[in-house]
Amino acid sequence: MTITTFFRPKSVAIIGASRNQQKPGHVIYRNFLESGFKGPVYPVNPNAEDIMGHKCYPNMASVPGSVDLAVIVVPAASVPGVMEECGKKHVKGAVVISGGFREIGNTELEEQVKSIAKKHGIRVIGPNCIGLFDPASGVDTIFNPSYKLTRPKPGAISFISQSGAVMSAIMDWMGSKGYRAAKFASYGNASDVNEADLIGWFGADPDTKVICVYLEGVKDGRRFFDTAKTVCKTKPVIALKAGITEEGGQSVSSHTGSLAGQFEAYHAAFKQSGVTEAEDLEQLFDYARVLSTQPLPKGPRVQVITDGGGFGVLATDFIVRSGLMMAKMRTPTINLLKKSFPSYVVVRNPIDLTGNATPEMYGQAIQAALDDDGVDMVLVIALFQTPLLTPEVVELIEEASSKKKKPMIVVSAGGDYTEILKKSMEEKDIPTFSSSQRSVASLAALWNYARCKNGMRCPSPFGTCLK
Amino acid sequence: MTITTFFRPKSVAIIGASRNQQKPGHVIYRNFLESGFKGPVYPVNPNAEDIMGHKCYPNMASVPGSVDLAVIVVPAASVPGVMEECGKKHVKGAVVISGGFREIGNTELEEQVKSIAKKHGIRVIGPNCIGLFDPASGVDTIFNPSYKLTRPKPGAISFISQSGAVMSAIMDWMGSKGYRAAKFASYGNASDVNEADLIGWFGADPDTKVICVYLEGVKDGRRFFDTAKTVCKTKPVIALKAGITEEGGQSVSSHTGSLAGQFEAYHAAFKQSGVTEAEDLEQLFDYARVLSTQPLPKGPRVQVITDGGGFGVLATDFIVRSGLMMAKMRTPTINLLKKSFPSYVVVRNPIDLTGNATPEMYGQAIQAALDDDGVDMVLVIALFQTPLLTPEVVELIEEASSKKKKPMIVVSAGGDYTEILKKSMEEKDIPTFSSSQRSVASLAALWNYARCKNGMRCPSPFGTCLK
Repeated sequence: MTITTFFRPKSVAIIGASRNQQKPGHVIYRNFLESGFKGPVYPVNPNAEDIMGHKCYPNMASVPGSVDLAVIVVPAASVPGVMEECGKKHVKGAVVISGGFREIGNTELEEQVKSIAKKHGIRVIGPNCIGLFDPASGVDTIFNPSYKLTRPKPGAISFISQSGAVMSAIMDWMGSKGYRAAKFASYGNASDVNEADLIGWFGADPDTKVICVYLEGVKDGRRFFDTAKTVCKTKPVIALKAGITEEGGQSVSSHTGSLAGQFEAYHAAFKQSGVTEAEDLEQLFDYARVLSTQPLPKGPRVQVITDGGGFGVLATDFIVRSGLMMAKMRTPTINLLKKSFPSYVVVRNPIDLTGNATPEMYGQAIQAALDDDGVDMVLVIALFQTPLLTPEVVELIEEASSKKKKPMIVVSAGGDYTEILKKSMEEKDIPTFSSSQRSVASLAALWNYARCKNGMRCPSPFGTCLK
Repeated sequence: MTITTFFRPKSVAIIGASRNQQKPGHVIYRNFLESGFKGPVYPVNPNAEDIMGHKCYPNMASVPGSVDLAVIVVPAASVPGVMEECGKKHVKGAVVISGGFREIGNTELEEQVKSIAKKHGIRVIGPNCIGLFDPASGVDTIFNPSYKLTRPKPGAISFISQSGAVMSAIMDWMGSKGYRAAKFASYGNASDVNEADLIGWFGADPDTKVICVYLEGVKDGRRFFDTAKTVCKTKPVIALKAGITEEGGQSVSSHTGSLAGQFEAYHAAFKQSGVTEAEDLEQLFDYARVLSTQPLPKGPRVQVITDGGGFGVLATDFIVRSGLMMAKMRTPTINLLKKSFPSYVVVRNPIDLTGNATPEMYGQAIQAALDDDGVDMVLVIALFQTPLLTPEVVELIEEASSKKKKPMIVVSAGGDYTEILKKSMEEKDIPTFSSSQRSVASLAALWNYARCKNGMRCPSPFGTCLK
């Protein structure tokens, strides 16, 4: 089988499904029932006759239909037996959620599971992982209930995470912000499928436009970086490497040497393989949102349109400091806008529509910037607190963005009212930010990837350079 | 009069109060009625008999009582006449919201207002400003209605902003996040009261524990920096300087020289005067929240307590890279915790309570870190998605924090459920963050201020050094 079966199985068994709502085996079974998964889902547990009103099977042999994917949530010691059952049932893939293997020194037990899987030709994700989430197919092995952990809607960002906690926190954060996702995979102890397999597979996955990776260690560095290099030629890979310092209670001075050494080595390898490096998790998804939704720019020239002078000044500073450029609109565009706007509007870069900005003024300024060949990217700053800026401006931005003519992103700082409007834009594939700094860094990452993909020289701090 | 009267007037007149809900004069009058302002508030407008059921006065002469503060929201041309009326009424201070003065070339009109004010001894904030907000007294001249712009509750952070748009967006953001504030002041054209006056006054204001400043230009640099230097000896001043590059459509290369020059000059002046410099608005308030609520640490040693290994690793990296140190707890503490915790919990730094963490385990680990003299600061990472981590942990954190023994801040990444718990902690003066990076930068700023205030040498990148 290929990894595809993990995300798109025809049928699933939840081994260790439970009636107890607190148990992972209950939450996972419920996920599949409620997520819109199309095929049959079989709960397996010798101690329950039925779960949530559905017949429960004592073992895999008693399951009536064939099973593509087994999700295993039983104590570690029971996993080998369960895997044998799966083998006899011709299961293609198993996600082993259960912990208690190599991570606590139980290497032998993990090897046993591995060899049973190999014997029967079962591909394994895990053990000791939080597993998979695919909002399009409804595969959802995440054992955090949905009231605690919001699931994202289908989108184009896929996320590979060595850490289950990082993956679940990020999934929740994305879901509640309206950020959309293609697939999530955490692979735990990586007894079979590992980060390189997943990057390679996501590289070919048509749903995935951008691959995010959270890494702590890389087992096979050569293979990881070779795979990443190949994938980066067609779609962006954005990575956050944690553990670039020696963990734990050591003083700064005593390991500054190893810190720098390791950091430099990863930095160089990312750069060489074309991987975009992120500094923290927020930046990872800032970059991902922009790279997955926006067309690649033809150049580094950014036009800023704002209703708050201060935010425009801050954006200008960050643009210049990040190595991007302030766009110069052509004279006919400037004359056209000067004619349309009240005299207090300053038509240059930034265009400051002032606190009297109306949705129509934003619409005109955005259209002019998209049409002007002196502009490569558009940064819209919209502070919704101003009196005349009705939510209609969001519709105008969404309409202009839908044509995907040039990259366009939005900065809006504020409270609940602002967040509601931002979420609407996120759901229409328009990346939104609270901070000028973060928005500009993301445009710089986009330009950098565009440049590197097209083989231009890439002497930037962002580290994505394929040629 | 002193600036105090602006924030704590006994009586207020809103000149230009309006019946039209869209008009600033209406919103401001309504603010004072609904904000809990204690004294009489007189609406003044010759064209209205009453506003919101209250008698409206045609001019200042007809107002029955005395008036400490006039908020002026009339067309620019009418301002001199209104100021004369205020003079005859012995008004002490005026906030002139109206625009249309120096900022559009009407220097003469502004000078006229200035000289009338001087003649009558009226202090002026503005013109062309969004004015003042004081959640404790109910002074609120912000003309954005509260459904669009959430007001923060009373706290210890004061904010001086040259830009009204920046101030209103930040106020909204703080209010909706549960961040608390002492006072906000935007001074617009600074015809009388300016940034140095305000820093000096906030320096002596007992409600204000931390002063934030958003600056574009500084008119009298010498006075600004001298005042800041004095104030920094007793409370932190955190500044964001915008406009460190030349604005507008110039290419990077053509002004890199002036960019670096200006940037370096400000950087040096901030450092010399003890001002903590922020890179963007989010960081400004990250620092402010930590500096206004947490005791100063005795050293740079941070203990990390987490239920998500990945977040712990990321925090460790940032701690080491920011110049802080990973704390080493004493052997008795470690033995105590090892005895209390299940064997899978790794008791070192970070303490990884794992996805099985309970509120009690957090309580024990936090108490141990607060009691251990090898620990100067505590960074709690709590991912609320884990199954056993009930909201009770928030109560335990709040209780431990209330003793103010050592600085303690919280990192939690997630969605709506997480945000609700974070807001509860913010309201109890516990700073919360979504990102390890931002949390650690704030602890570094706190340590840096502590060190500088105590006259230790300060060779750090943060730039707060009093000696």
